Amino acid sequence: MTDALTAKAGELDHADPLDGYRERFAVPDGVIYLDGNSLGALPAATPARLAQVVRGEWGEGLIRSWNPDGNGGAGWIDLPQRLGAKIAPLVGAAPHEVIAADSTSVNLFKLIAAALAMNPGRKTILSEPGNFPTDLYMIAGLEAQGLATRRLAPREGLAEALDGDVALLLLTHVHYKTGAMHDMAALTSAAHAAGALVLWDLSHSAGALPVHLNRCNADFAVGCGYKYLNGGPGAPAFAFVAERHHDALSQPLTGWMGHAAPFAFTDDYAPAPGVARLLCGTPPVLGLAALEVGVDIVAEIGVVRLYAKSQALSEFFRECLRDLGVVLELVSPVEPDRRGSQLSFRHPDAYALSQALIARGVIGDFRDPDILRLGFAPAYLRFADMAAAAHHLAQVLAGQEWRREEFARRAAVT
Amino acid sequence: MTDALTAKAGELDHADPLDGYRERFAVPDGVIYLDGNSLGALPAATPARLAQVVRGEWGEGLIRSWNPDGNGGAGWIDLPQRLGAKIAPLVGAAPHEVIAADSTSVNLFKLIAAALAMNPGRKTILSEPGNFPTDLYMIAGLEAQGLATRRLAPREGLAEALDGDVALLLLTHVHYKTGAMHDMAALTSAAHAAGALVLWDLSHSAGALPVHLNRCNADFAVGCGYKYLNGGPGAPAFAFVAERHHDALSQPLTGWMGHAAPFAFTDDYAPAPGVARLLCGTPPVLGLAALEVGVDIVAEIGVVRLYAKSQALSEFFRECLRDLGVVLELVSPVEPDRRGSQLSFRHPDAYALSQALIARGVIGDFRDPDILRLGFAPAYLRFADMAAAAHHLAQVLAGQEWRREEFARRAAVT
Repeated sequence: MTDALTAKAGELDHADPLDGYRERFAVPDGVIYLDGNSLGALPAATPARLAQVVRGEWGEGLIRSWNPDGNGGAGWIDLPQRLGAKIAPLVGAAPHEVIAADSTSVNLFKLIAAALAMNPGRKTILSEPGNFPTDLYMIAGLEAQGLATRRLAPREGLAEALDGDVALLLLTHVHYKTGAMHDMAALTSAAHAAGALVLWDLSHSAGALPVHLNRCNADFAVGCGYKYLNGGPGAPAFAFVAERHHDALSQPLTGWMGHAAPFAFTDDYAPAPGVARLLCGTPPVLGLAALEVGVDIVAEIGVVRLYAKSQALSEFFRECLRDLGVVLELVSPVEPDRRGSQLSFRHPDAYALSQALIARGVIGDFRDPDILRLGFAPAYLRFADMAAAAHHLAQVLAGQEWRREEFARRAAVT
Repeated sequence: MTDALTAKAGELDHADPLDGYRERFAVPDGVIYLDGNSLGALPAATPARLAQVVRGEWGEGLIRSWNPDGNGGAGWIDLPQRLGAKIAPLVGAAPHEVIAADSTSVNLFKLIAAALAMNPGRKTILSEPGNFPTDLYMIAGLEAQGLATRRLAPREGLAEALDGDVALLLLTHVHYKTGAMHDMAALTSAAHAAGALVLWDLSHSAGALPVHLNRCNADFAVGCGYKYLNGGPGAPAFAFVAERHHDALSQPLTGWMGHAAPFAFTDDYAPAPGVARLLCGTPPVLGLAALEVGVDIVAEIGVVRLYAKSQALSEFFRECLRDLGVVLELVSPVEPDRRGSQLSFRHPDAYALSQALIARGVIGDFRDPDILRLGFAPAYLRFADMAAAAHHLAQVLAGQEWRREEFARRAAVT
């Protein structure tokens, strides 16, 4: 590391308007955390909020806490809507178009099935090979039910694959492995021109960068709560349905919490208005409460500022690598505007490389078969971390440290 | 209240082998909590365990905590199986037959669909009118997909309704409203004789009384984590599949966590062995961790002792009511062996009655249209609570307290 780059890192941190937010997260000492795209760091306010929910709302309030806020209630019953309304502006949606519920996978199932029901006569779900597995597997689930046909086309062939059989185009906005970003407006428009609906998986977008669902005329979206929204391990996910589809919306996971009158306890299902009919079982209050803290801090910082810093961080990281003479194949787009908040590099021993970095306190991750993935969650990362991480990577490579036996064994699951 | 009954309550508490467990729960002062069948009380150990998961495993361990226990991992990836194995003996199942996942509603969908797939040529799902709504609604979801036909028959007509069209008999073991218990062995046997499979909803059984899934030859079961298992609001649920069905098990919510090799990130779905293929999205770690504390304490006490005390509590409560001259129509079975851990009474103003009791610190609940439901979660209730609750109920009735305007307005949602 040259003195010049160390000095530049210091200057960039000094000038960073987001610098103060690092202390709002509990990042452990000695760790440079480049995996916020897999599990966001712990917001400093989360432990106290959860203690309040557990000891106060559950322990003291007991069943009464399900009641609306005030009158002894803690408003648990409205949490999915309240949280959805907070997530909505982060993804370019109206507050009543988003709801927090279940997992990303379960929400994918609901909305793929909803699209099939709204597009009768068409059974094909179009996606791309190498999309995040659960997106492809949830299509397979409906395929096994005889309700869908999966079609995969490489991204350059998607437009051509949009024929009259396609009910839904299902894509992940920012690719989990490469960080490459789809052109949401153009692909949505192309799908609509072909008579298909579009479902965007925002797992690697929400909270990382500005998303414009309504400006792009998107139909459906899902997203993850535990990555850039900092909701904690296995946090609840969210789902978006454009208002124009609310009346026609129908999905098969018709649980009691999505009923128009859950506490009437009738035998027959009648859907709640709007996105509330996406609810199924009883909302997971602990997970939703933790997610709310993470969403609040992202909303406070703002996705425009977050994405600007993320781009600056990743570009500075590349500058550091160049300065250190590190040559690694970048599989993410070179243009910062065409990628999400990550840089992915190809290396034949990417797994061992990631383990050698973790041993040095630089936590990124590995994606099969040969990808070293480094995420730049900008709320809690400093430019000095970029310089230090680049330095560690250069040393690991120069010393061929990854060849040490301890780093070869595949113990990690993530 | 007679002195004799007060004295008897004291003697019963003194002789109660479970008396010491009350302090293992955080029941608020001034509250007699008769709603553990809706939301179990907070175990005293839960706040510290959650703080450890949040600050230690998430905050410090970060993404590494997904790895198996030891080597820096916290074993998050195995939580659904670990917890399933702990729940299994409570419901008469083998450890590898149970998994903790999603909500009861979502698990119902998976297993109803699985039964349909295993019984080709049959589409009818048989249940009873007045079953818990989500059980009926989840059948409706598959019906709307064109995959199932819902048939409802009153409990006395279930055997007759089991014809050659029935793929699955879906019943709640202990009825949520009346507490009436089905004969699991007899109905399972009758269903099998008709070529149907059986799915038992154990939401009001698990953790409250001994359940013998395997002894009854049950095929499938689901159950709730937030009632008698004390897992907290919206806790994850569990699902059981008898080992003999593991190889043929197929369900449509084929998410990445139910894949044989989730971290190989392949495009094609291949199911994990056994009940692990019931997993869908990323497991909700906070909810699972809280549930584990609740399950541990239930396992420590033992369901045989819990049910014995619950029967003693409810019978003593009835004795107190008789002594106080309270006449209320009991809709629960009179024989303790034929009901779960609750007593339900019919009253035209049951809602206002429940509100008047809550105002006195006696928290039970109301079920539409005319049921006052009192649950007897025996781990944290005393016989003295029974005497006091009966006393409050007698006073409310004698003074027609429920007629006060403040108790008439339907604010409560639960």
